Amino acid sequence: MVNWNNLDTLKSYEALTKVSRVDLVSVMSGESGAERVKKYQVPMAAGLSFNYASREVDDETLKALSELAKEAQLSEKFEALYNGEVINTGEKRLVLHQLTRGQLGNKVVSDGVDKREFYLSEQKKIAAFADKVHAGEITNENGEKFTTVVQIGIGGSDLGPRAMYLALENWAKKNGCFKMEAKFISNVDPDDASAVLGSIDVSHSIFILVSKSGTTLETLTNESFVTDALKKAGLNPSKHMIAVTSQTSPLAKSDSYLQAFFMDDYIGGRYSSTSGVGGAVLSLAFGPDIFARFLDGAAAEDKLAAESDVSKNPAMLDALIGVYERNVLGYDATAVLPYSQALSRFPAHLQQLDMESNGKSVNRFGEPIDYVTGPIIFGEPGTNGQHSFYQLLHQGTDIVPLQFIGFKNSQIGNDVDIQGSTSQQKLCANVAAQIVAFACGKKDENLNKNFKGGRPSSIIIGDELTPEALGALLSHFENKVMFQGFVWNINSFDQEGVQLGKVLAKKVLAHETDGALSEYAKLLNI
Amino acid sequence: MVNWNNLDTLKSYEALTKVSRVDLVSVMSGESGAERVKKYQVPMAAGLSFNYASREVDDETLKALSELAKEAQLSEKFEALYNGEVINTGEKRLVLHQLTRGQLGNKVVSDGVDKREFYLSEQKKIAAFADKVHAGEITNENGEKFTTVVQIGIGGSDLGPRAMYLALENWAKKNGCFKMEAKFISNVDPDDASAVLGSIDVSHSIFILVSKSGTTLETLTNESFVTDALKKAGLNPSKHMIAVTSQTSPLAKSDSYLQAFFMDDYIGGRYSSTSGVGGAVLSLAFGPDIFARFLDGAAAEDKLAAESDVSKNPAMLDALIGVYERNVLGYDATAVLPYSQALSRFPAHLQQLDMESNGKSVNRFGEPIDYVTGPIIFGEPGTNGQHSFYQLLHQGTDIVPLQFIGFKNSQIGNDVDIQGSTSQQKLCANVAAQIVAFACGKKDENLNKNFKGGRPSSIIIGDELTPEALGALLSHFENKVMFQGFVWNINSFDQEGVQLGKVLAKKVLAHETDGALSEYAKLLNI
Repeated sequence: MVNWNNLDTLKSYEALTKVSRVDLVSVMSGESGAERVKKYQVPMAAGLSFNYASREVDDETLKALSELAKEAQLSEKFEALYNGEVINTGEKRLVLHQLTRGQLGNKVVSDGVDKREFYLSEQKKIAAFADKVHAGEITNENGEKFTTVVQIGIGGSDLGPRAMYLALENWAKKNGCFKMEAKFISNVDPDDASAVLGSIDVSHSIFILVSKSGTTLETLTNESFVTDALKKAGLNPSKHMIAVTSQTSPLAKSDSYLQAFFMDDYIGGRYSSTSGVGGAVLSLAFGPDIFARFLDGAAAEDKLAAESDVSKNPAMLDALIGVYERNVLGYDATAVLPYSQALSRFPAHLQQLDMESNGKSVNRFGEPIDYVTGPIIFGEPGTNGQHSFYQLLHQGTDIVPLQFIGFKNSQIGNDVDIQGSTSQQKLCANVAAQIVAFACGKKDENLNKNFKGGRPSSIIIGDELTPEALGALLSHFENKVMFQGFVWNINSFDQEGVQLGKVLAKKVLAHETDGALSEYAKLLNI
Repeated sequence: MVNWNNLDTLKSYEALTKVSRVDLVSVMSGESGAERVKKYQVPMAAGLSFNYASREVDDETLKALSELAKEAQLSEKFEALYNGEVINTGEKRLVLHQLTRGQLGNKVVSDGVDKREFYLSEQKKIAAFADKVHAGEITNENGEKFTTVVQIGIGGSDLGPRAMYLALENWAKKNGCFKMEAKFISNVDPDDASAVLGSIDVSHSIFILVSKSGTTLETLTNESFVTDALKKAGLNPSKHMIAVTSQTSPLAKSDSYLQAFFMDDYIGGRYSSTSGVGGAVLSLAFGPDIFARFLDGAAAEDKLAAESDVSKNPAMLDALIGVYERNVLGYDATAVLPYSQALSRFPAHLQQLDMESNGKSVNRFGEPIDYVTGPIIFGEPGTNGQHSFYQLLHQGTDIVPLQFIGFKNSQIGNDVDIQGSTSQQKLCANVAAQIVAFACGKKDENLNKNFKGGRPSSIIIGDELTPEALGALLSHFENKVMFQGFVWNINSFDQEGVQLGKVLAKKVLAHETDGALSEYAKLLNI
């Protein structure tokens, strides 16, 4: 049995608040710094490794964090989760996204269905469908091959799949497995759908309608937008559209789609990239084998998250250090900084993953809590960010912990040698330099040119951003967020905070408003 | 004469810390809320208006802010700036970006040159060049028209121009003034340049190399990348490339370019969208007339910023309320939330503009300060953000002030009527609903479904995102950042915090490292 207790009731947390503060400038300088870089790293899946030498921890802090992990029963809670307990208590649901890519524990049966078998069978159905599209067995009305796939979805049905597609697009082109270009329609702003439709040849496009409930207003609106466009082009929408939804949704049995693929309520939107939500678009774009390799990377990383020895569990370690930074050191935000253009939208995905999961003020029993929870997450790829907001990160009045990601090799492999180094070497040199600049700073008598240092960061390093590495990266952050939710004793798997806005928007559209809302509606001409 | 004093030495600031706290839930409910929405708004240029009814202020707060504006001499400081005083004291430079779009005060002469005339003449040179390209008078080696323009630049040479291009791309297509597609190469990651080059027809592409100093490593590296690609395609790079740089840069007199256009040290990178840095790419993409309309919008908004009555000066008002939120109320971040897909990269531009300008810990005399300065800036377009990080904004443990932007009409004008409303109406209904949901909240006995409210926001509302409206928006935020820098007594126009990373990266590339830096370099295979 696991015990769910608030963080501030744990003895190990009180102990953590009393550990000696690490002076990064001092410990990261000279030989001590070199030793830390060699010592404070842990292997991840797919050849990645997590190096936390420049986080504000030492052996004493890590021991205290390890005690916290034990008292908070992080491993036991993860075990309960992957063995199918009702972890999403608010919505009374299991939490099974890890099961879309592997089986960590016992068979999970719900309503008589082996859930691993269910997810696998949907993955296979998608694979078979994608193979037929690629082989020209499923075509448009004129018997011509589809060349473009367009995902219609919002939130978790958009951000994760889009970030994953962009992450592998160039890799797939380079490695001869680029099958179809993918586009995404998400916003209810009509200009979003108009612009995407204007940029493609609809007669050779297949659309994926993604909505678990089948009732997401933005997505249904954009479906209409697309079906209108298809009809105007003299095409039959039902021959150009598939659905990814739950079996109980109104979309599931509609004959408006070529085929429907299923997920269920146990896969939260922001955790759905490894389900059919990511599976359909990625399998169509790159082929089912590439999607399977992506899942393999995630599954391998999940296994490491199930390791009870904190020092061998990168996600748990990252989570615990993050809690220390947020609750003890008082840092309010975390920046995600991938030195990889392919990961340009990965921070936007993590922004949803983290902030929607852990931006909560009540514990899992609906009681108020007296400590801060999820931080603000933001980020852009390096080196671009260096020429943008790094000024504040280096010399601003607040300290922002940083999560770097870097790869030894580029995806495409084209490069140019200028001033004695390649672009890839310059990219890697910059991320190495930034970590040390943030940690150690540099004294200058002119305080405007002075760098205080003491600004913590960690880095995940890989050989190359492959499908496996991407899966491992995704799993790492999903599990980090999950462990932090466990520590904070909150439910990371619901999102009640998005409801009120929806209710009020409906009132505006029904002209059932008064007071301020009525005046704002007037100003906006509704 | 203006006096430069730290914020915490001002009597009006002390008074501001003592004003009664506004209870947003209470004042924004019922008739009082409706009155506030009507009362707390101020017209901007280009038909925009700034509504701050849902910010945490009332007449008492506003009076205190107005006193602060007077004591901090905000109008006098702006006047000194636009009349050509050395406001960027760290680098001993004038600050003249407003002069690229209009003349607010006296003639500004530097080194015998009338700077307004200089910026205008460069704008005209660019216009003449763009007209010749569009007319087919300047062509590729085969006498064929250029169809694509590619900007090579990073930071301010990338984020602003890219955001502006995306903001007007669909508008230009709809309004028959779309001349050339634009692409952007920024990151030193070789996959960035490779991917862009792989997506265009280089033989019909014209490249704009943008670097004020002519020494930006990323940009010069990417220039080589491009010239290599042009040579491999049998093309003459000097017939495909122009430069935007300063007259003293090594690029200025090079014969590697069709033509060079100039800016100077008085235009900071993040303030350069209205100079040749934005001018070349926007004039080529949409035509010089559209760029001129964008400048007109910015110039008109600048005029409002020069208004000494705070209640008629949207940028100053926004700045002052932001200082109150940051320094008195203790809010650490601000989210920018445009309900317009066209503004998808506008938050990324504002992130640089704000965080690089005001992420400082010393005052303009290089002395340490004892109060917080620039906040973290992040954001994504609505309604997408609603399905991502709004959970934390509504129910997280920290309060984040919000800056909404909305337009009554879409740019393209295609729309679809579903469930009794158009997409544009749904978009506008959502932003209205969010403002009230954040301000007023909603009580629920189930605390997991309870919304505390009290979360401040403002909104800029316009008819449509036109070139003029975009210019006004840009100017608003540039001037807001400037006024906040004045209040904090910092230099918003240098960026010494970006230097250390550059120095250390060079050491890594030269293999002149030891300690932690050497170990990180090894891990990254450099």
